[in-house]
Amino acid sequence: MPSKIPDGETRGWIVPIGGAENKENDRHILEGFVRVSGGAEANIVVIPTASRMHETGPRYEKLFKEIGAAHVTVMDFDTRRDCQEPGRLKRLEQASGIFFTGGNQLRLTTLLGGTPVAKLIRLRNAHGVTVGGTSAGASILSEHMIAFGDEGSAVISGSVRLAPGLGLTNRFIIDQHFRERDRLGRLITALAYNPFAIGIGLDEDTAAFIGPDESVEVQGSGGVTIVDASEVTFSSIGEVSEGQPVCVLGLRLHILVAGATFNLHTRSASAGGLVNSKD
Amino acid sequence: MPSKIPDGETRGWIVPIGGAENKENDRHILEGFVRVSGGAEANIVVIPTASRMHETGPRYEKLFKEIGAAHVTVMDFDTRRDCQEPGRLKRLEQASGIFFTGGNQLRLTTLLGGTPVAKLIRLRNAHGVTVGGTSAGASILSEHMIAFGDEGSAVISGSVRLAPGLGLTNRFIIDQHFRERDRLGRLITALAYNPFAIGIGLDEDTAAFIGPDESVEVQGSGGVTIVDASEVTFSSIGEVSEGQPVCVLGLRLHILVAGATFNLHTRSASAGGLVNSKD
Repeated sequence: MPSKIPDGETRGWIVPIGGAENKENDRHILEGFVRVSGGAEANIVVIPTASRMHETGPRYEKLFKEIGAAHVTVMDFDTRRDCQEPGRLKRLEQASGIFFTGGNQLRLTTLLGGTPVAKLIRLRNAHGVTVGGTSAGASILSEHMIAFGDEGSAVISGSVRLAPGLGLTNRFIIDQHFRERDRLGRLITALAYNPFAIGIGLDEDTAAFIGPDESVEVQGSGGVTIVDASEVTFSSIGEVSEGQPVCVLGLRLHILVAGATFNLHTRSASAGGLVNSKD
Repeated sequence: MPSKIPDGETRGWIVPIGGAENKENDRHILEGFVRVSGGAEANIVVIPTASRMHETGPRYEKLFKEIGAAHVTVMDFDTRRDCQEPGRLKRLEQASGIFFTGGNQLRLTTLLGGTPVAKLIRLRNAHGVTVGGTSAGASILSEHMIAFGDEGSAVISGSVRLAPGLGLTNRFIIDQHFRERDRLGRLITALAYNPFAIGIGLDEDTAAFIGPDESVEVQGSGGVTIVDASEVTFSSIGEVSEGQPVCVLGLRLHILVAGATFNLHTRSASAGGLVNSKD
């Protein structure tokens, strides 16, 4: 469960990124992450544990330093015991921004899940620290994580399997590489089980900056698909067998691009700056 | 434009099918077409013009006869002049059901568009005659037809090209092979131009039986995706350049399976018989 936000404090930003964010000529998304982590004062911990590639951590360290963060540390975890080690916990407590790289989200959850590190990250986010991640690092941010799933826009029973994630919030379910791997069907299927949550489908090179006020702002070159199931009048997913199409009535869909916003609390979408962009 | 429905008469059924309807062990969809065309009295004209394969017409002739239609005639058109020929027009006037096979929808529209045959089919539908078709034969039924488009669930400017269709109605835009070719993105893109119409995305082996009262009933093994854009609050498609993601806010999505219904007039979805299916 998400850590309780202490009285008088505000939750930190949550920044899921759809993967393959631009690291060369237009680094809007990573720059935005540094900005909401304190700008020139930013103290960032990069967790490359989802990735098996040794260069992943150092690459983000270099990027965040180039962008202007004051301190950047790469912190990897090879065992669950690493996730209790006091030195790392102490370093994490100093961070103003925590960033998960891409890779395999089940590697992240099997190593970090239920450890003091996971608990501390939730607690720090509840105290105002920014937590973000890209691809697998985006998926794990929420309480309910898409662990496996099929491609395609069809809503098919059994097309998605959920697992518990890091649990910064249970308000939304994140999917990434969304357009590129055609994942709308599995995201809707995930919501058909329980229409409580809001689905956030992130295209590559696209991020949802989720502020302390639960407002989602889009950055990057792609789209963010918001699936709001709160007005669903009927879902047959409890009754159909695996592989069968699911009946879901009354879904609300918003496709946001940079400039548009969605509020997770009021469930309202706004074209924001886009409306005046023709002037 | 659709023919005016004469006072005291009701429009005939419109039956778009998503392609690849079952022709062997479970012929629910084709049986349903015969039923709404008069059952044992049905007098069906099969138009195989979209197809280049000589066996297409005779195959449907055999199927409809096996199912029990009283009369079945295959009527092909090789030239636009064929579409003025009095003998064929006379035969069409006797039909209680007119069926377009799959193939290339542009072959259908380039040959039939603007001819006495097209006009007569619209007129007969307005007088109560059933008109249906599968795949390309489904796409052409409406006033606005998807001529070309990309695959994928993303809403991308330029991902769809529309052309005028046969024009039985302008109330909806049909897409077929919907799940199999991942066409949600192009259907939403088509609606983003003008939210007036309702999008109907038909999976293979799935049909929308659209009654005289504008109620859509689903038959077959797949799903029918209804995209209702009437509550859209913002669409950026007029402002973005080709290939760019489009911002569309406030879409309504219903995924129907056999048993569920949607009314094109009231724009309301119902689980119909599904709700009690567990009893």
